[in-house]
Amino acid sequence: MTSEPGRFRIGLLGHGTVGAAFAELLRERAPHVAGVTGRRPEIVGVLTRSRGDFDAILADSDLIVELIGGIEPAKTYVTRAMRAGKHVVTANKQLLSQHGEELWALAREHGVQLRFEAAVAGVVPVIRVLQESLAAAHVQRIHGIVNGTTNFILSEMARTGADYAETLAEAQRLGYAEADPSEDVNGKDAAAKMAILARLAFGTPVHLDQVVYEGIERIGPDDIEYARDLGLGLKLIGTAERVDGGISVRVHPAFLYAGHPLASVDGPFNAVTVESEAITEITMSGPGAGGPQTASAVLGDVVSAMIPPASTPETVERLPIVSDVVSAFYLHLEVQDRPGVLSRITGVLGEHGISVKSVVQKGLGDNARLVMVVHPVLESRFFAAVEEIARLPALRGAPRAIRVIEEEFVR
Amino acid sequence: MTSEPGRFRIGLLGHGTVGAAFAELLRERAPHVAGVTGRRPEIVGVLTRSRGDFDAILADSDLIVELIGGIEPAKTYVTRAMRAGKHVVTANKQLLSQHGEELWALAREHGVQLRFEAAVAGVVPVIRVLQESLAAAHVQRIHGIVNGTTNFILSEMARTGADYAETLAEAQRLGYAEADPSEDVNGKDAAAKMAILARLAFGTPVHLDQVVYEGIERIGPDDIEYARDLGLGLKLIGTAERVDGGISVRVHPAFLYAGHPLASVDGPFNAVTVESEAITEITMSGPGAGGPQTASAVLGDVVSAMIPPASTPETVERLPIVSDVVSAFYLHLEVQDRPGVLSRITGVLGEHGISVKSVVQKGLGDNARLVMVVHPVLESRFFAAVEEIARLPALRGAPRAIRVIEEEFVR
Repeated sequence: MTSEPGRFRIGLLGHGTVGAAFAELLRERAPHVAGVTGRRPEIVGVLTRSRGDFDAILADSDLIVELIGGIEPAKTYVTRAMRAGKHVVTANKQLLSQHGEELWALAREHGVQLRFEAAVAGVVPVIRVLQESLAAAHVQRIHGIVNGTTNFILSEMARTGADYAETLAEAQRLGYAEADPSEDVNGKDAAAKMAILARLAFGTPVHLDQVVYEGIERIGPDDIEYARDLGLGLKLIGTAERVDGGISVRVHPAFLYAGHPLASVDGPFNAVTVESEAITEITMSGPGAGGPQTASAVLGDVVSAMIPPASTPETVERLPIVSDVVSAFYLHLEVQDRPGVLSRITGVLGEHGISVKSVVQKGLGDNARLVMVVHPVLESRFFAAVEEIARLPALRGAPRAIRVIEEEFVR
Repeated sequence: MTSEPGRFRIGLLGHGTVGAAFAELLRERAPHVAGVTGRRPEIVGVLTRSRGDFDAILADSDLIVELIGGIEPAKTYVTRAMRAGKHVVTANKQLLSQHGEELWALAREHGVQLRFEAAVAGVVPVIRVLQESLAAAHVQRIHGIVNGTTNFILSEMARTGADYAETLAEAQRLGYAEADPSEDVNGKDAAAKMAILARLAFGTPVHLDQVVYEGIERIGPDDIEYARDLGLGLKLIGTAERVDGGISVRVHPAFLYAGHPLASVDGPFNAVTVESEAITEITMSGPGAGGPQTASAVLGDVVSAMIPPASTPETVERLPIVSDVVSAFYLHLEVQDRPGVLSRITGVLGEHGISVKSVVQKGLGDNARLVMVVHPVLESRFFAAVEEIARLPALRGAPRAIRVIEEEFVR
């Protein structure tokens, strides 16, 4: 007769799509987890808006899984759990990107684990890889497609030629976009995730408020189409990188050349590329959302918490966060089709020290369309040139500029 | 005054490309590692063929890094280190794919860590992800490009149209292939790595001898060219999967459709796709070799060993290893160009229950070339049909068959 293995008691806060999928996955995999860890995990209580008592659940649990989302009451529950000496696993990007320092400090103080793989890029194991595999690497840059809704919309716009509003409606119908998609499409969701990745990669505090972000609401199908002629594909890209004087963390629509590891990441997938001198670059991709997928990331964290201890991210540096950085750009101009216009425009670029990499010109009756890619330049300098170009009498509409990510890795 | 942090003493066995890169990287990153772990790592002794004394190094070390490769004397050193209660980090795929069970048992018995991220796919963190992130996942299948030399050769053959021998010579000149490349090009190196991945994914013992493998030596540039017309690209693919009755572990040249996550992995890069019902699939890619890259994976393991404990893979099941599995195939035939030949050939396929997905026929004077892709079928059945086709009087050369990996993931 074998003795019943010890129990590992889990309190579950939130029972939406991910919560329900987690409960089901845990039931299914509990015997296997018991084999690996020596203890059998089980859910001892569930808290939802309408049922459950937090105090009772907390008292009964070894670990709290927080899947409520948002700041409150999640923050109070997570804080109380750690103060009571319980481990916490959460998928809450808002909470960590705004109150991470306080919560990590609390985890260290009380000797408990605070794990959050599911908060960024779903089942793609970027948190663990940054915290463990790359703990000794000097990370130079991270590029990420960390929002599945916007990646799905941009992929569909490229595939069908439909416009933004139409494609968003389609994404909502298919369940890839929420009824209120604003934080996805305006870049704020991606910004929260990039704040967390930057925090781990550089070991320096990064708050959501310090991340510059821009969404995809103003992208037109023609931008995608013209850029394709130049070999470029459009993604909503989060960037966290070391720059002179500190780090930069930002989210923008950006073009990628076909050879970039993120260029082939289509549909609702997420992917992250980490660059450092020693490793060149590694890329990880996979489903960025979905109940079973996110639940799988949560369960991976629970299993790790059952095999203690894990590290919580120490602050090893305090780096300034820089906002004016160097980028290549795509520039789309509608101009009068008459002699000297191209020369006048490239003249303005030249005066600002901006050099053109490639240009496509198309006649449109009396007007012409100029689509060009310029070599990397300090953003403030590029925007000053664009402002000057916008004032030229030959211009027939506001210039449109989108960043271009070069296919070069740090070495 | 702050006190000197404690030392963490490392004995280094082997001082080739990776060993030297590791020593340099460790020197550079030691202050950072001390910040993260509270102890400062340093190399206290180096053993090479011509210098160093193993007993003295062992006595002085907290952890042994084994970068000698091969079975002996590496196995004796690793065994003695663990018996002496020291942690071990190794990049030795031969050792683990042939003596892994004994070594993992020893690690458990003596309560020490045996880490080996660098043994498979260099800096791509597939070992950690399988052992930790996916500890609770029911992995269904792994596909891997785990040999950079063959991936470089196949990428170059596709790019230039040059033949195998020529491209191998080029790879040797550029340092992507060894002077004696046999274990790379015949698939044995990849087979050792797939044995290790299968062991971790399925929790069942897998020995190198149980892995079926085939190399790239007989691939012609025309195979690559014709298949491109069908939208296929050629890779040396390692597969480990659950099949009816057990698991299958094998390495073959295989075609991929352009949309497969491994299709865009070119040059000396490695990549691994892990599929399971809950996660759909995740893909990880990066440099598969190179001194600094491999050293970086070794250092990641050292840092993890400094923050104990880690799990060693328990045997949770003992699954039979199945050799006859289901595959789609590409089939290349040179035949007499006369009526009834295609019908005769498809007749033989039909009798064996094999259905054709796509076919391209090209006239060549009196002869014709038939290139087709057939739907998935049990391999033994397919080869029986090919044998029968080979005996048809209309055949003008031996049939050539290469596996095709479908772009469908487990769900």
